[in-house]
Amino acid sequence: MQSKNLLNQSAKSDSKPGKKGSFTLGQRRPGGQHNSTLVEQEEKRQDLGFGTRINDSYSRLINKDGSFNVNRVNEPFWHRLNLYHRLITMPWPKFYLLVVAAYITTNALFACLYLLAGKEHLKGLSESDTGNGFWGAFFFSAQTLTTVGYGHVSPSGYLTSAIAAFESMIGLLAFALATGLLYGRFSRPVAHVRFSRHAVFAPYLDVNGWMFRIINERSNQLVDVEVEVSLSRLENKPDGTPYRRYYNLKLERSKVNFFPANWTLVHPITDSSPLYGCTPGQLDESDAEFLILLRAVDDTFSQMVHARMSYRADEVLWGRKFKPLFDTSDNGNYWLDMNKLDDTEEMPLNL
Amino acid sequence: MQSKNLLNQSAKSDSKPGKKGSFTLGQRRPGGQHNSTLVEQEEKRQDLGFGTRINDSYSRLINKDGSFNVNRVNEPFWHRLNLYHRLITMPWPKFYLLVVAAYITTNALFACLYLLAGKEHLKGLSESDTGNGFWGAFFFSAQTLTTVGYGHVSPSGYLTSAIAAFESMIGLLAFALATGLLYGRFSRPVAHVRFSRHAVFAPYLDVNGWMFRIINERSNQLVDVEVEVSLSRLENKPDGTPYRRYYNLKLERSKVNFFPANWTLVHPITDSSPLYGCTPGQLDESDAEFLILLRAVDDTFSQMVHARMSYRADEVLWGRKFKPLFDTSDNGNYWLDMNKLDDTEEMPLNL
Amino acid sequence: MQSKNLLNQSAKSDSKPGKKGSFTLGQRRPGGQHNSTLVEQEEKRQDLGFGTRINDSYSRLINKDGSFNVNRVNEPFWHRLNLYHRLITMPWPKFYLLVVAAYITTNALFACLYLLAGKEHLKGLSESDTGNGFWGAFFFSAQTLTTVGYGHVSPSGYLTSAIAAFESMIGLLAFALATGLLYGRFSRPVAHVRFSRHAVFAPYLDVNGWMFRIINERSNQLVDVEVEVSLSRLENKPDGTPYRRYYNLKLERSKVNFFPANWTLVHPITDSSPLYGCTPGQLDESDAEFLILLRAVDDTFSQMVHARMSYRADEVLWGRKFKPLFDTSDNGNYWLDMNKLDDTEEMPLNL
Amino acid sequence: MQSKNLLNQSAKSDSKPGKKGSFTLGQRRPGGQHNSTLVEQEEKRQDLGFGTRINDSYSRLINKDGSFNVNRVNEPFWHRLNLYHRLITMPWPKFYLLVVAAYITTNALFACLYLLAGKEHLKGLSESDTGNGFWGAFFFSAQTLTTVGYGHVSPSGYLTSAIAAFESMIGLLAFALATGLLYGRFSRPVAHVRFSRHAVFAPYLDVNGWMFRIINERSNQLVDVEVEVSLSRLENKPDGTPYRRYYNLKLERSKVNFFPANWTLVHPITDSSPLYGCTPGQLDESDAEFLILLRAVDDTFSQMVHARMSYRADEVLWGRKFKPLFDTSDNGNYWLDMNKLDDTEEMPLNL
Repeated sequence: MQSKNLLNQSAKSDSKPGKKGSFTLGQRRPGGQHNSTLVEQEEKRQDLGFGTRINDSYSRLINKDGSFNVNRVNEPFWHRLNLYHRLITMPWPKFYLLVVAAYITTNALFACLYLLAGKEHLKGLSESDTGNGFWGAFFFSAQTLTTVGYGHVSPSGYLTSAIAAFESMIGLLAFALATGLLYGRFSRPVAHVRFSRHAVFAPYLDVNGWMFRIINERSNQLVDVEVEVSLSRLENKPDGTPYRRYYNLKLERSKVNFFPANWTLVHPITDSSPLYGCTPGQLDESDAEFLILLRAVDDTFSQMVHARMSYRADEVLWGRKFKPLFDTSDNGNYWLDMNKLDDTEEMPLNL
Repeated sequence: MQSKNLLNQSAKSDSKPGKKGSFTLGQRRPGGQHNSTLVEQEEKRQDLGFGTRINDSYSRLINKDGSFNVNRVNEPFWHRLNLYHRLITMPWPKFYLLVVAAYITTNALFACLYLLAGKEHLKGLSESDTGNGFWGAFFFSAQTLTTVGYGHVSPSGYLTSAIAAFESMIGLLAFALATGLLYGRFSRPVAHVRFSRHAVFAPYLDVNGWMFRIINERSNQLVDVEVEVSLSRLENKPDGTPYRRYYNLKLERSKVNFFPANWTLVHPITDSSPLYGCTPGQLDESDAEFLILLRAVDDTFSQMVHARMSYRADEVLWGRKFKPLFDTSDNGNYWLDMNKLDDTEEMPLNL
Repeated sequence: MQSKNLLNQSAKSDSKPGKKGSFTLGQRRPGGQHNSTLVEQEEKRQDLGFGTRINDSYSRLINKDGSFNVNRVNEPFWHRLNLYHRLITMPWPKFYLLVVAAYITTNALFACLYLLAGKEHLKGLSESDTGNGFWGAFFFSAQTLTTVGYGHVSPSGYLTSAIAAFESMIGLLAFALATGLLYGRFSRPVAHVRFSRHAVFAPYLDVNGWMFRIINERSNQLVDVEVEVSLSRLENKPDGTPYRRYYNLKLERSKVNFFPANWTLVHPITDSSPLYGCTPGQLDESDAEFLILLRAVDDTFSQMVHARMSYRADEVLWGRKFKPLFDTSDNGNYWLDMNKLDDTEEMPLNL
Repeated sequence: MQSKNLLNQSAKSDSKPGKKGSFTLGQRRPGGQHNSTLVEQEEKRQDLGFGTRINDSYSRLINKDGSFNVNRVNEPFWHRLNLYHRLITMPWPKFYLLVVAAYITTNALFACLYLLAGKEHLKGLSESDTGNGFWGAFFFSAQTLTTVGYGHVSPSGYLTSAIAAFESMIGLLAFALATGLLYGRFSRPVAHVRFSRHAVFAPYLDVNGWMFRIINERSNQLVDVEVEVSLSRLENKPDGTPYRRYYNLKLERSKVNFFPANWTLVHPITDSSPLYGCTPGQLDESDAEFLILLRAVDDTFSQMVHARMSYRADEVLWGRKFKPLFDTSDNGNYWLDMNKLDDTEEMPLNL
């Protein structure tokens, strides 16, 4: 209180209250009371960053590929293009196709430039079997762009020489870029974690549990794997208006040091769980979505990796449990049958 | 106490108290009392690293681009140049211009070297259309630097051959560097977060709040986003001398797991807030600046990213709230209108 | 309770209990009781991600090279291949051999293509000493792939020119890839930590301790080194069925700021240790395995590095202690004899 | 106790106590007592990883360049060489010299190979001005290694062609390596933090403080800077034998969010400090060394960076304080005079 008065007094004499109004903040209510209200409110939200106004029940928050279901309006063109992000994350065949297309386009473009500058300046072109037209210039361009430069065709004259000098520089920069992109694509940390197609409600110890299962798809070593699960569903405010509410679901185990093969994650439905007493109909009704965020360290490059997943109400099975997928063979090795990830069998729930 | 006496006694016999004086530290006062004083003092500072002596009211601590408003005197040339840092952070057009300029300069330089070594040692030069002067040597240099090496001009003689051998090595190293720089520029983690132009004071629940808003500019997935907000303002010491004091502002929510689109950050002005009871005039008066540090993980490369921002007193609006910018379309997708980031509307404050 | 009723009521009218059954979860038992049971159960597991069903006593969980002892069935071919991971982690000689083999294979392949397209389209080939057969085409291919392009042999005709243009592009991309792989291999963070061959049971203070020793193999600076040790062993359930149980072993010191040379890690066997009262026979019997996870930061690139190790019961020595391996020489430097890492000497245990 | 008995009983029947002796660990003493002893002991150590046996008083633990003062005996050659680490951390001039030397050596080597294979197989060599001896082969090698391949000299014959094909592959790989190394060198995270030459004992509030000062040498943005300071000194055990003991020194402030310019770190010498009552003579006597570990995040690449430093007793000044080095100029910018980092002035200590 003391220090605030100091400020208030030093400011009092020179303040221009008329300029921006003379609001005095928050002095209406006695202290202490606000805090409890806020904390209480905060407790209820557990907003993950999606906001509470989203209550359309036919959409999902997280797409199956782990991206967020959000579209942007008035995004600037370059942001929308997001070139590097796309080149890094597009599938390999598309990437290679793009590289080849760019190579052909660039050569065609420079071929036109050489023809415009005069085909007579490409010495040796007329004697080559590819003629002295477009294709001759095209192949000369390819030899320049890749810096292979056989020399049976060579530039002469200022303009053509300058174009060729420029093209060979462009070529080196373009392949420098390709080097970076290839490395970026390869070294990009991706969590090779496969989630079971469905989550299940199954008996767990003396209660029931909401469960899903993940496997490490690769022989990469994943360590320090952490999982957070949130439940997002529509609820009604006291006045009846629906709003989206978020809950963190407590897991029986939310971190493992090693993730050699598979892991079944269990949210035990005790009476402190938001799912306590929930029926399948209610789950559907409330547009429930289970949001999953996984963090791990890929040991190959000691990089952190992330995976996201969501299960909607219709992707959750009731009264089924996962079949085991981990066996010990005769020679003492552990065998993981990756095709059995989604296998479940009926198992009546605890009542 | 015991162990200290051991040390004191073992040292007593050989110590040379005359050499450096015989100060004995801190034994004047009884224990316990110091600690409380220090802790109290520390509580008051919450210094972010700027120091408390900065009290010029016409400058800001954090520039609009997120850099710090600091200048260095007597910085060594190479540190001031900070070459890699500049090449990585300069805008793309400037970077490309620089590459082209370096390419031309290097070629011109080597062209001169070749002419000095004797143009008669560039075999084939005299027959080329570019003549046997500077430009002929220039284009030969370009062919060597990029290792395209057509061969219609080729070096002969020890000196010219050596220069060419050196130049081709330089060329490869230079493009190796360019590869690294291009990759570095592309892969550099940047938080594509846009801050609202103004912060606002708006009603929040049953009190008021200081708020600003951020959006994720790209379709990159940002996860684990954390924000810290500090208030820096001038206050008067009991003796009347002004000093700069720092406060951490408690946020209603300082971390979200997902940041798909937008987030409004709120500092509720309860009676424990340093802004409690503050008027616009006082805010101006005290040269207040709100310092914001954001940390997140960009999921493309699982890289940590940082963003910094500051709002000064004149960039804060009183009694306005942000308009919503997030809508659900008919087909169940969420649309974010990025142009509405800065849109606010009047909203009388709670008194 | 309030908020749950809200949901229940809003859902009651529209729910279709017949569709998926009308399970009502967890309402059978009074609250509080579940939690204690779960926590107790959880306490017992401390599962590291291997599961509790693994009880074959002739296998180990972590191989000597730090990888996990797991095999995958029905893993897709590309996942099994895991190309990048392999290329990055294979030994250097194998990597170089692979590069050379790929180079020769690619050239041979393209040589065949050139011969199929007609050897008459490789101008200059017939005059070369390598004849106009396979080897001529092979060396032309090499000159194209590496973009050296001498030009004494050059392509003519549309098809051959196109193949050559394609090959030079492939060449650049392949060497771009090699650049990335070489960099990836070099910059891959590896914890150059060597573990002692055996762990020992030795006296520690007034009790005994389970100990092992690590050294920093390189002059790299490792900082913030953390170690976690777990014990995995078979135990019997009350009904006599064996199951695998995991314990975290408390270390006398589990983190050091600096790791300049060596570190002996000690688990003191107090009466709260799972090893308290354990005999060598029991250790063997229970198929015990000590699992070690080490995390550190390599200061060269400030990268996190990981190492894993395990000691099985037969790799633990009883009643031996490690000999010192750290000495101070005359000139004030510390000398670490790396060959003494595994040296132990007899030392009767405290009884 | 229950679960241990289970294990003991199941093991009893089959154990072979004769094989490895039948030690039974730790059952001698009643529980609880050990723990207190161990914790107490641990409290005293605070070992940073250097061990307690190091008590030569003429050496330092951390060298001035931040490396550890440790030497290795019997380190394998490749580990000692530590090639990548050296190539990344060596100074630039040395690195460039090495590259040029490697280039010349490789060319000389291949020149010899070409001569051995027969100089008549290098077509065009005899007509070149560099003669058909070593230098002709040398320059041809350079043209092949860099893939410039003019073609006025070209290989013929199987052997020479094969050598050339091999050399061009080597060339590309070598420059791939150089690319990686250049990138690695540039992008290596280095904390550009300069420490004051001396630490000082100066008055701090109503007690004294041990202080040192750091500045951010570059315009790079450093955020989340954390510092840990330890004191290492010789003390005498109750029986009089000296041993090295480590203390963490509590700092008045150990973390700042921003580090735009400079920061003075203060350890207040309260009565809980190990320096309480210490005299200059005692500090010298006990071979005291202050060890400093700094962690920060460089914002350019969001990389963690580390710096280490140590002050020995003779690098600490008594009764001097640092002069300010941060000023505000007329135009509202802050000026930091980097030459004043080490400037101190006399200031009598509090008694």
